[in-house]
Amino acid sequence: MFKVLHKDNKTNARIGRLQTAHGVILTPFFMAVGTNATVKTLSVQDLLDAKVEIIVSNTYHVFVRPGLEIIQKAGGLHKFMSWPRPILTDSGGYQIFSLAMLRKVTEEGVKFQSHVDGNAHFFTPEDIISIQKKLKSDIIMPLDECVHYPCPRDYAEVATKRTTHWVKRSKTAYNQLNRKTKPKDRQLLFGIIQGATYKDLRKTSAEELVELDFDGYSIGGLSVGEPDDLLQEILSYTIDFIPENKPRYTMGVGTPDQIVRCVEQGVDMFDTCVPTRYGRNGTAFTSVGKITLTNARFTKDFSPIDKNCDCYACKNYSRAYLRHLCNAKEILGLKLVSYHNVYFYMKLMRDIRLAIKSNRFSEFKKDFLKKVESSK
Amino acid sequence: MFKVLHKDNKTNARIGRLQTAHGVILTPFFMAVGTNATVKTLSVQDLLDAKVEIIVSNTYHVFVRPGLEIIQKAGGLHKFMSWPRPILTDSGGYQIFSLAMLRKVTEEGVKFQSHVDGNAHFFTPEDIISIQKKLKSDIIMPLDECVHYPCPRDYAEVATKRTTHWVKRSKTAYNQLNRKTKPKDRQLLFGIIQGATYKDLRKTSAEELVELDFDGYSIGGLSVGEPDDLLQEILSYTIDFIPENKPRYTMGVGTPDQIVRCVEQGVDMFDTCVPTRYGRNGTAFTSVGKITLTNARFTKDFSPIDKNCDCYACKNYSRAYLRHLCNAKEILGLKLVSYHNVYFYMKLMRDIRLAIKSNRFSEFKKDFLKKVESSK
Repeated sequence: MFKVLHKDNKTNARIGRLQTAHGVILTPFFMAVGTNATVKTLSVQDLLDAKVEIIVSNTYHVFVRPGLEIIQKAGGLHKFMSWPRPILTDSGGYQIFSLAMLRKVTEEGVKFQSHVDGNAHFFTPEDIISIQKKLKSDIIMPLDECVHYPCPRDYAEVATKRTTHWVKRSKTAYNQLNRKTKPKDRQLLFGIIQGATYKDLRKTSAEELVELDFDGYSIGGLSVGEPDDLLQEILSYTIDFIPENKPRYTMGVGTPDQIVRCVEQGVDMFDTCVPTRYGRNGTAFTSVGKITLTNARFTKDFSPIDKNCDCYACKNYSRAYLRHLCNAKEILGLKLVSYHNVYFYMKLMRDIRLAIKSNRFSEFKKDFLKKVESSK
Repeated sequence: MFKVLHKDNKTNARIGRLQTAHGVILTPFFMAVGTNATVKTLSVQDLLDAKVEIIVSNTYHVFVRPGLEIIQKAGGLHKFMSWPRPILTDSGGYQIFSLAMLRKVTEEGVKFQSHVDGNAHFFTPEDIISIQKKLKSDIIMPLDECVHYPCPRDYAEVATKRTTHWVKRSKTAYNQLNRKTKPKDRQLLFGIIQGATYKDLRKTSAEELVELDFDGYSIGGLSVGEPDDLLQEILSYTIDFIPENKPRYTMGVGTPDQIVRCVEQGVDMFDTCVPTRYGRNGTAFTSVGKITLTNARFTKDFSPIDKNCDCYACKNYSRAYLRHLCNAKEILGLKLVSYHNVYFYMKLMRDIRLAIKSNRFSEFKKDFLKKVESSK
């Protein structure tokens, strides 16, 4: 399902092609986050206009609201939300451990209360696979336990072992459920490597999962509060255990500069709510760093967010107008800045792929980070 | 600037054409409300897609935020908000009396504190005309005092007299400011008839204003809490004092059934925040009455809001999905329902004009109200 098409000749950056049930996508790619079966503030048309190729949704979130039965009746998540392109569903492990009122974790699974209505649920790793089968997402994730930074060694060890155990069970459940699935409809199942900031745990986790031969590998537990350099160090160490011919996914990473750094290490897939969350706060990414539109210096600035951007917001609206909308808490402001930011991320990924293709990713990275740094 | 093109042969409904600095519009028309220089949740592209022809903005609101200087620097309200079609600006009288912390009303003008930052301001009727000149809106309104329902006779009398006095001063100020304005750039100045629910006050107000020969007449003080029948009675009484060759505007009216009833009486122009306000509450208008999408009966309803509607929301999303978005307080839900409602209003006005053109407005009204009534 995955093929590396080109490797940059100076770094580990690479271009690949990932085949999913809803179409082929070139890597490295960015997935816009649509937790509640919607990328916040954006319609499907907005996403298509922003050239979004794949989105991430969340098993836990859509399970507690609107509920699995409704999405099944709609014919799956794509049909429910009218999105024609690929969807990756996160298992929701992270959300169960951070958002739900967690009642009990056992080797068997997790018992929790929904953050929406307080109803009690129990999820096994097998349940999470079975739910995602019903959601009909293109890429699915096993239940995992993601720890925060810093995490004590003994707890990280328990959580990593449990994750590996759960991921193995997930693979077994997946194989049973998919015995009769046609190859073209097959969901891709990824393994999730945990291990916090402990290299030996990362190594064991990676090796055990690689043995099981997943469709791709996600490096979890990054972007959970650790310093940037540590993120890169753990990534650099862990990624070497993943076979070259498998897609690599750093879950929840990251800001534009983090993405550029991770691509250099050979990461193929990214997701983060940063563009839409920052957008709703009036912070916009530009080709020369980010700006906060509510800042007084934009009061009479009638230039676009980014003069190098050709998105709808930049072609039609000024910083002064967007600042006014954000100050007046007008929904249009939150939406236009979110839209611009998602467009910016998609453009960044296209630029990254072009740079890799022409073996000038090192220069691209240097230029990009210089611009971002100088604006800080 | 205004010409009646066709009169329905059974009712007072009529089709006209209104020429403004930003284009010609057929009457009867509906103006989407863009109080803060934005129609809530909708981009300019959304408004054009919904076939919106003219919007209303608000002098008081844009004066207190972002402030006149910024809009002037942008080149006027159209340029500030990137809206290419006509704009009517309300004087903001209603908002000053209802929203601002009102300090003092004298014959000279009103002293108030902004509801945004508490800053003190003093507006004379002349100021309001001069501000709107700088906003460069197409149709402008004089400062008025709009009373609520019910209003004691003595207070209504004072407010009506004051409004008439202010409107006269506005006309003088307008004439002075526009001595050198080219006809094609000329803003249209409307008179505002007040008088609460007292017919003699309505009569005096109307007669005194008609004498001054305004570009059009707004019947103010309707849709301020009075019963529907009383609205129609006061309108029916008042409209007869307005010359046939002038456009008539019921400010703040109304729901679809109120609009249909007012058109029958010969009203040409409407505005209300109903479509967007209802939209943000998850209430959608349909060809068979309104529905509240958060209602449990739509949980598994995969049909569109209105199967007779060809708007983007109806062509792409189900009631079940929109209900989910509204329940999850997702901005996309508020936007899609607002968009649908504005689209619905614009379609209603096109249908109304078609019915008048073919002299079947009575039948249209009967059918329309029957459908709406039966769904209540």
